[in-house]
Amino acid sequence: MERILSENMYYHMGERVKIQGWIHRIRKMGKIAFLILRDRSGLVQCVVDTNTIDIKILKLECVVELIGNVKERNAETKECELLVETLTIISKVTEDLPVEINKEDLDVNIDTLLNNRVLTLRHLKTNAIFKIQAAISQGFAEFLKKWDFTQVYSPKIVAEGTEGGTGLFEVKYFEKKAYLAQSPQFYKQMLVGAGYERVFEIGHVYRAEEHNTIRHLNEYVSMDLEIGFIEDELEIMELETRLLKYIFQYVTNRCTKELILLKVKFPEIGEEIPSMKLSEAIEILKTEYGKTELINDLDPDGEKLICEYVKKKYNSDFIFLTHYPRSKRPMYTMPQGKDSTHSFDLLFRGVEITTGGQRIHNYEQLKESISSRGLNLDSFSGYLQVFKYGMPPHGGLAIGLERLTSQLLGLRNVREVTLFPRDRDRITP
Amino acid sequence: MERILSENMYYHMGERVKIQGWIHRIRKMGKIAFLILRDRSGLVQCVVDTNTIDIKILKLECVVELIGNVKERNAETKECELLVETLTIISKVTEDLPVEINKEDLDVNIDTLLNNRVLTLRHLKTNAIFKIQAAISQGFAEFLKKWDFTQVYSPKIVAEGTEGGTGLFEVKYFEKKAYLAQSPQFYKQMLVGAGYERVFEIGHVYRAEEHNTIRHLNEYVSMDLEIGFIEDELEIMELETRLLKYIFQYVTNRCTKELILLKVKFPEIGEEIPSMKLSEAIEILKTEYGKTELINDLDPDGEKLICEYVKKKYNSDFIFLTHYPRSKRPMYTMPQGKDSTHSFDLLFRGVEITTGGQRIHNYEQLKESISSRGLNLDSFSGYLQVFKYGMPPHGGLAIGLERLTSQLLGLRNVREVTLFPRDRDRITP
Repeated sequence: MERILSENMYYHMGERVKIQGWIHRIRKMGKIAFLILRDRSGLVQCVVDTNTIDIKILKLECVVELIGNVKERNAETKECELLVETLTIISKVTEDLPVEINKEDLDVNIDTLLNNRVLTLRHLKTNAIFKIQAAISQGFAEFLKKWDFTQVYSPKIVAEGTEGGTGLFEVKYFEKKAYLAQSPQFYKQMLVGAGYERVFEIGHVYRAEEHNTIRHLNEYVSMDLEIGFIEDELEIMELETRLLKYIFQYVTNRCTKELILLKVKFPEIGEEIPSMKLSEAIEILKTEYGKTELINDLDPDGEKLICEYVKKKYNSDFIFLTHYPRSKRPMYTMPQGKDSTHSFDLLFRGVEITTGGQRIHNYEQLKESISSRGLNLDSFSGYLQVFKYGMPPHGGLAIGLERLTSQLLGLRNVREVTLFPRDRDRITP
Repeated sequence: MERILSENMYYHMGERVKIQGWIHRIRKMGKIAFLILRDRSGLVQCVVDTNTIDIKILKLECVVELIGNVKERNAETKECELLVETLTIISKVTEDLPVEINKEDLDVNIDTLLNNRVLTLRHLKTNAIFKIQAAISQGFAEFLKKWDFTQVYSPKIVAEGTEGGTGLFEVKYFEKKAYLAQSPQFYKQMLVGAGYERVFEIGHVYRAEEHNTIRHLNEYVSMDLEIGFIEDELEIMELETRLLKYIFQYVTNRCTKELILLKVKFPEIGEEIPSMKLSEAIEILKTEYGKTELINDLDPDGEKLICEYVKKKYNSDFIFLTHYPRSKRPMYTMPQGKDSTHSFDLLFRGVEITTGGQRIHNYEQLKESISSRGLNLDSFSGYLQVFKYGMPPHGGLAIGLERLTSQLLGLRNVREVTLFPRDRDRITP
């Protein structure tokens, strides 16, 4: 007999079926016991006659196989239950559970959550997070495939950092010293110039940041894209607007159950995401919120407040900030005028989820930009090569998968949306 | 005017259009010049009247914009050409090209190929390789999404190796020592047990192998899957057979041009991929090929010869080898009888592309297996946790993306199918 999933039981009404999964809950009522079985598709009630089947040895979370008849419980909700004939324990629980999986909310602190990850992920709400996250990254890939982007895999072991040496994890690479890539920035640009024109990558990047905040991870998944033959950064911003709409629609179509369970409020995106210069945002924060200390950048509090302002004023959960000063952007950023750049950040519900912009494509200009920052040209020879041989105007962006997930789900700590986070103190499990 | 792609010019017959791309070839014929323009969609001929347009400064590989009228060249092949009105250089070439991009074959040695990667990738045939590779990994993901697998992102910075310490790259992780993951093996098993039941991951893995061969990379893309509630490894082998068929169909549908260009001969897969015990393969190699030195494993030559044998005898490009001895498999492999295991390799045209099998799911049995190999149980505490709390029977496999690509395309060196390979001596570009 083939196993069926609990969510498909309704289509087997009156039939004898086999289901397998974890014992989620046990409730005894005299000579009857109600077992809730959990499999990857959800929960189902199973009724056991304890006169004929001994359930004394059953423990929560053990893995069982149940065979029995399917009976309707509620025609409207399509709920049904299994009248159990045989119960077989497939895999036992050998120790007491350190956390309760079957409560409505887990309600444990972050260390308990992460130290017992293999158990806490069994909680329906925790489980749902990563199904949504998978759909987000798949929506990203689907959209870009439709837009003729080529998916690439660039190396994470690199000889030099993209931003000039700070915040890099060192790798012992035989006799050499190497580093973990902070971003696929150089490679995605090189691949645009190598003829692919449009490339994207979904992969890990590494930041050796000393500080431990709820917004930072030392290893995270970066969803990167880069596109050639653009006019300016406005094209990238328009592309991101369409991309985000597509992702949200994609997730809505595929994760209905999970979104309801987590009570996710989807953001509204109109034709355009509102946009303002960074300097305007700083001015607003000064006049409206009395924040006078900001120079050329926002702090986390500033990001939060400007998003509140935009929400009130434009009813948007998103805001593009543009015209970042050159001093705050990496050397490859296309300048605009004397001090500004063709770059942008995208904030979503109080947190920056994207940095993007147009890049310098002229070889001489790029060399000058590198030198003007006191960086050594020789360190960038591999990167610079493509700029000698006909590099089209181009730009791109990166979206942090965990940040987008946490902001969408309204979760405060980015570790909650990382299966096995790596931070200042944690490299296990 | 919006840019159109060269492959879409036929649909703009008689219209004035704008195209952009690289100058692939220049041929002068008296007062007429024929330029071949290359964009991400292919090549197109453009006709220039050199009386009105100066092309003296044009160099191969510079980036240009051409505006002109579309004229039919061949109704049957839908070829057309552009009668150029205006030519604008968007991006110049400032140095002589170290390799010729516009020959039918690149014909350079592996170091020239890789040292000039941003240029050699512009060659049509090299370019096609990575479009096919992208489709392979996307076909892998598509199939598994349909089969209800959840895509996951597991950490690559780990505290311990999966195979017990050898072949690991060391990372300086603040005050701690960490390593780069050799495979997502432990995490994918943990995630099956964490309730997802079916997971897959496409991501980099790292092997600090000292030897430099045409089959090995120190960083490569592993396509991993793991599935719970299985009977035995035969289910995994059946799943892989379907998966490979799906991938080949997916690539065929999406990469027609590239497959023709590279003259790819697609492998035939029947209902079933033939399968034999490793010991049978060793016996055949002994009696048919006089290879007497093999004990409990095949060498590269053995893999090649057994594939030749299978091709002749069963007309199959694939062969499953099963019943690997315990001594040749990692500690998590499900034993079979006294010395054998529920594991397999899949060989494709002479090279192993997959290792897979059923895993131990019983906590006590797993602990015993770890200890019996002289490994320290404490090192595996994070991994072992899930086995205490109800772990279903499970198994899985991994396919090396680069190996599958090189075998499909008939390329000898796995570096040719890696954008920016990392090997014993190479960490740039």
